[in-house]
Amino acid sequence: MTHDHRTPVTILGLGPMGQALAGAFLRSGHPTTVWNRTAAKAEALADRGASRAGTVADAVAVSPLVIACVIDYDAVHAIVEPAAGALKGRTLVNLTADTPERARRTAEWAAGHGIDYLDGAIMTPTTTIGGPAAVVLYSGPEEVYRAHRPALASLGGTATYLGTDPGRAAAYDVSLLDLFWTSMSGLVHAFALAASEGIAAGELAPFAKGIGALLPDIVDEFAHHIDGGRHPGDESTILSAAAGMEHIIHAARARGLDAGVLTAAAAVARRAIDDGHGDDGFSRLAETLRRPSRAR
Amino acid sequence: MTHDHRTPVTILGLGPMGQALAGAFLRSGHPTTVWNRTAAKAEALADRGASRAGTVADAVAVSPLVIACVIDYDAVHAIVEPAAGALKGRTLVNLTADTPERARRTAEWAAGHGIDYLDGAIMTPTTTIGGPAAVVLYSGPEEVYRAHRPALASLGGTATYLGTDPGRAAAYDVSLLDLFWTSMSGLVHAFALAASEGIAAGELAPFAKGIGALLPDIVDEFAHHIDGGRHPGDESTILSAAAGMEHIIHAARARGLDAGVLTAAAAVARRAIDDGHGDDGFSRLAETLRRPSRAR
Ligand SMILES: NC(=O)c1ccc[n+]([C@@H]2O[C@H](COP(=O)([O-])OP(=O)(O)OC[C@H]3O[C@@H](n4cnc5c(N)ncnc54)[C@H](OP(=O)(O)O)[C@@H]3O)[C@@H](O)[C@H]2O)c1
Ligand SMILES: NC(=O)c1ccc[n+]([C@@H]2O[C@H](COP(=O)([O-])OP(=O)(O)OC[C@H]3O[C@@H](n4cnc5c(N)ncnc54)[C@H](OP(=O)(O)O)[C@@H]3O)[C@@H](O)[C@H]2O)c1
Repeated sequence: MTHDHRTPVTILGLGPMGQALAGAFLRSGHPTTVWNRTAAKAEALADRGASRAGTVADAVAVSPLVIACVIDYDAVHAIVEPAAGALKGRTLVNLTADTPERARRTAEWAAGHGIDYLDGAIMTPTTTIGGPAAVVLYSGPEEVYRAHRPALASLGGTATYLGTDPGRAAAYDVSLLDLFWTSMSGLVHAFALAASEGIAAGELAPFAKGIGALLPDIVDEFAHHIDGGRHPGDESTILSAAAGMEHIIHAARARGLDAGVLTAAAAVARRAIDDGHGDDGFSRLAETLRRPSRAR
Repeated sequence: MTHDHRTPVTILGLGPMGQALAGAFLRSGHPTTVWNRTAAKAEALADRGASRAGTVADAVAVSPLVIACVIDYDAVHAIVEPAAGALKGRTLVNLTADTPERARRTAEWAAGHGIDYLDGAIMTPTTTIGGPAAVVLYSGPEEVYRAHRPALASLGGTATYLGTDPGRAAAYDVSLLDLFWTSMSGLVHAFALAASEGIAAGELAPFAKGIGALLPDIVDEFAHHIDGGRHPGDESTILSAAAGMEHIIHAARARGLDAGVLTAAAAVARRAIDDGHGDDGFSRLAETLRRPSRAR
């Protein structure tokens, strides 16, 4: 891929991720302008050569490529709406995480103001940005993506263009973050339960990594079952999983731990069992979750 | 490690895992006797050379090493209590998953009947048993473990002895299965959400594996923070995580999906924020979960 190290780039939002993005553009030589609601967060970047802008309009005026990365789309709109005039004719790449529906609405807003718009999602932590492990997804008009791909290559790793629907990157994002945050919730709960049994986090860690190592094969297996609409239970059943979850809930409660997450997970398994699917494999639950239920 | 291919072994319970265990002992040449409540499940193993026993007492009478692997400890007790006399002087290795507390109670029951008892936990799927990827944990009297280690080596992979407390293997087991089942719940939910957005499971799968690939580093980082009692939020904060979880819940509900698991997860994050920890890192939640709460 052709790289581009000359296009001026503006970063709106300097939380941990915005700072990582700005750092990556600076490292690859782009003239980089930064703005953040709380101005002090720009200091370290200014020391590394970034230009600080006093207003959003000033920040976007100097760059054809503007990247927004803040906490959610409400914050994005609060930042860019007053600067819509200054953004006209430029490209706004929104790397903030939010829902597909909001991404589509923001794309409409941008189109209404003559702003080229790409929606994106960053799937890896700040420390990966600019290195080989970064994963960034994009969707929106293909010519806009093509035009900026060389500059966006400064973010490193793998960039994937998911098509013209501006909500597509966010659809992948919410699905993948669903897996991510649910797993993270399981991880902190596992450490809490282990601690309550006198097991240090460092003692559990190597085995927890072993659990993570099971994931790739299971992902492929479940995907195969879900796309095929068949959920064989010959290796392990929902009934067995439900029994396992009950033990964990029991052990957690016996130690005074909150067991809300697993209780909710067990309720989904229970619903599949009540529907007569107890002898199916766990991948069946992807269908159970999609059936309308009173208990949301 | 010295292997042993001669000790007669009895397997009680022939669900998917019991069948895998029996298969592994057969493959390594042990005289293998099997029993299951539903006798038909022994047929394929009998064809491969296993002896079928008509009763539990008959099954245990022929082997110094007896392995139980059924759905839970209630089932274990239902099976072994009537055969306590026949088990006397033999070793019972209970590879059924259940709580640490029940493991300790079963160990007491066994001691009261002159039965040598090891508690164990299998951390990998049936397909790994007998191969290099199997992970099995054991706890209980060290001399009992040592005596049977060569025979248990037929299960393959890595065996870890966790000490004399018979509840220790189960304590690791519930903690690790907590991570496992919570992650599996996240995985099926991610596939369901993706499907509702028109993304096939096979399309999401490579990215879902990418999420799994983040786990090892995060496990080490969280373990370090938890054991150190410090939870810096400089890479990502609980506030940011809570915003992310809200988007996913919103997107899931907009598509009519059950969002109970993530709603429970977000409630824990919310509790930490209410306690003034919003700017800390996510590992802080391991402490939030351990604080007494009305909302269990
Ligand atoms: N950190 C990661 O590891 C990571 C990984 C992948 C994706 N992401 C995504 O990247 C985005 C940014 O995340 P982050 O970790 O950098 O931090 P964050 O905590 O999600 O967002 C902080 C940023 O949002 C700004 N902000 C919040 N409310 C605002 C408002 N009403 N008006 C204007 N600005 C507002 C903050 O400004 P102030 O400084 O003035 O408060 C700050 O710049 C999020 O969507 C996140 O999901 C992050
Ligand atoms: N499958 C896996 O991938 C896996 C991985 C790791 C650990 N494990 C653990 O291994 C253990 C066994 O799991 P599994 O997958 O083989 O199947 P399972 O569905 O958990 O257990 C099925 C076995 O339990 C027996 N059983 C259930 N209730 C009984 C009762 N009241 N009295 C007597 N027997 C009873 C069944 O007998 P019938 O055939 O007569 O119903 C069958 O032998 C579980 O603790 C599980 O958590 C399994």
